[in-house]
Amino acid sequence: MNYKARLRHLVNALPDSKLDYLLITHLPNVLYLSGFTGSSAALLVGERNTLLFTDGRYRTQAREEVKNARVVIGSKAPALAAAEWLAGQRSRRRVLGIESESLSVGARDRLSAALRGKAKLRPAPALVERMRTVKDPEELSRIRAAVKLGASLFSIACKTIRPGVREVDVAAAMEFEARRNGADGMSFPTIIAAGPRSAVVHGRASRARIPSRGFVVCDFGVILAGYCSDRTRTVHVGKPSHEAREFYRAVLEAQQAAIAAVGPGVTTGEVDEAARSVLRKWKLAHWFTHSTGHGVGIEIHEAPRLAAGQGQTLEPGMVVTIEPGAYVRGKWGVRIEDVVLVTPSGYEVLAPMDKDLIVL
Amino acid sequence: MNYKARLRHLVNALPDSKLDYLLITHLPNVLYLSGFTGSSAALLVGERNTLLFTDGRYRTQAREEVKNARVVIGSKAPALAAAEWLAGQRSRRRVLGIESESLSVGARDRLSAALRGKAKLRPAPALVERMRTVKDPEELSRIRAAVKLGASLFSIACKTIRPGVREVDVAAAMEFEARRNGADGMSFPTIIAAGPRSAVVHGRASRARIPSRGFVVCDFGVILAGYCSDRTRTVHVGKPSHEAREFYRAVLEAQQAAIAAVGPGVTTGEVDEAARSVLRKWKLAHWFTHSTGHGVGIEIHEAPRLAAGQGQTLEPGMVVTIEPGAYVRGKWGVRIEDVVLVTPSGYEVLAPMDKDLIVL
Repeated sequence: MNYKARLRHLVNALPDSKLDYLLITHLPNVLYLSGFTGSSAALLVGERNTLLFTDGRYRTQAREEVKNARVVIGSKAPALAAAEWLAGQRSRRRVLGIESESLSVGARDRLSAALRGKAKLRPAPALVERMRTVKDPEELSRIRAAVKLGASLFSIACKTIRPGVREVDVAAAMEFEARRNGADGMSFPTIIAAGPRSAVVHGRASRARIPSRGFVVCDFGVILAGYCSDRTRTVHVGKPSHEAREFYRAVLEAQQAAIAAVGPGVTTGEVDEAARSVLRKWKLAHWFTHSTGHGVGIEIHEAPRLAAGQGQTLEPGMVVTIEPGAYVRGKWGVRIEDVVLVTPSGYEVLAPMDKDLIVL
Repeated sequence: MNYKARLRHLVNALPDSKLDYLLITHLPNVLYLSGFTGSSAALLVGERNTLLFTDGRYRTQAREEVKNARVVIGSKAPALAAAEWLAGQRSRRRVLGIESESLSVGARDRLSAALRGKAKLRPAPALVERMRTVKDPEELSRIRAAVKLGASLFSIACKTIRPGVREVDVAAAMEFEARRNGADGMSFPTIIAAGPRSAVVHGRASRARIPSRGFVVCDFGVILAGYCSDRTRTVHVGKPSHEAREFYRAVLEAQQAAIAAVGPGVTTGEVDEAARSVLRKWKLAHWFTHSTGHGVGIEIHEAPRLAAGQGQTLEPGMVVTIEPGAYVRGKWGVRIEDVVLVTPSGYEVLAPMDKDLIVL
């Protein structure tokens, strides 16, 4: 990864935000800018200095992973150590940007005290999050690999799902396969939601057994080399009724409409509306209780957000999920999701496959 | 779980902190007080009203899980929805406590704007975190079950670890077993760190292969019914040198000394010192680069913290890890960890077992 270029880009953006330094405390942003994968760090970025503060547990790891910043090992909270370093500099009073969406009120107060008036705190715009929305080629190749591995787990689900099997055993088989193929872990708790549980949008695999007839929502993703995948498929166990087939068809049509709407210059709200309007036509919009999608990369949920009324414009290199669904409480639910890359001419579905209803 | 009693306890503590309401935004605290397991929620706790704010994805789940609070479904951020509800109340100006260690600066600012002067924000003391340090019988029984399941994974590790096997395959086998036995997932990324990698304190299982000779640090935990386990064992592949045996013996002696120091009225710093002083005697204290332990429960790391100089007093019902280690960069590392319950008369090691060095 070209951490150096990313850092340079960020440093160049500081003056526009009237910042002398930016204190990066959101760990995915630290990773993006420095390559550090530890669980405790703060990255202080300024025109002349970039320092990564962490603690003794990460001495070896930080020095191995971080090439473009000075590594400072301490025993205090990393953000506090950064503030003390800054307070110790002989210079005019500085403006220090903070990531106000991830820094806690308590941490900010301690930071402020440690600065002893030597710097003024200012909430910074989401500079790094914005950079992260457009993926560079190395990131894209990692995302492609993660999505490919993630997609392969669906065949395990199809082999495992049958009446009487516990949802959690389906998840276990998929997660084992993911791990064996190099995944660092799952990008979120695997959702296997069968029968009436398919109406529970975030129905984590439970000890419930798969019934002899009904939908099974499978929503799953891996983390591979630091990047996330995200995919949902809904299958039907036993012969589906005409109504079930139509319900599935409606959601699939909504998903395909939203995918077809993806392209540079289109707003995220327009993509959401493309899915929603199809479900409206089918009189199912009332059951579509979440947004259409989200960016995916280092984090499973990142910018942009594809929801009603959102006005962010899609750009080539953005990677988003398209995942409409419909859920009738106590009865059933269907969701279909792919990861889609915004290309200069439109879109590319990553690891595409036929999405006709699979009956098991 | 007796959510009602917990909530009553909290409400009774509000006047002492001069608060009319407390806004719970830290999700493990929301779970502790209401039973809600979703990923988006805010719980507003007041003398007369308790309301849980979440979004449409969790409509079904919230109504099933939450019995002691009014569930309010909305499309805004839950904390913001809570602020708007409060601003809509006809009453004198209220004091609203916030969890300043988990609420972000940005969220606090939006909260403040939404209150339109109808309430004054005040950082609240860590009331819920303090309640959570002492586990009630139902929590203890869940922790025992989690620790028991977690402990059983070590036998899988022993069966899987051999020269040439990838670290990640050991982790995959353990995680599969955990899932098959009902774990919701792992409580943190499984650490399998072999050979020189055993010196990397947080050495997540990698694609590296286990060498023919050396230590393998295995640090692993499950989440079972919402509660975490945490355990570390270090084994040796191939015949250990005398030096390796002595190194292991030193860490084990430090761990046993720290466990023996646990009891009501003892400070967390004293427990840490018990481990540290043994390693000092062995001239290994320099290589003990982290703290001795931490509380464990709904979160894998929670209060109290067992570290040098900490003055918190242990009480019966607290559950903590005891996990000293020593790490020589580029050479090897050893860590040994158990979960220990503070009892009225001293301590109880959960799922104890013989800890002599296992040679594989």
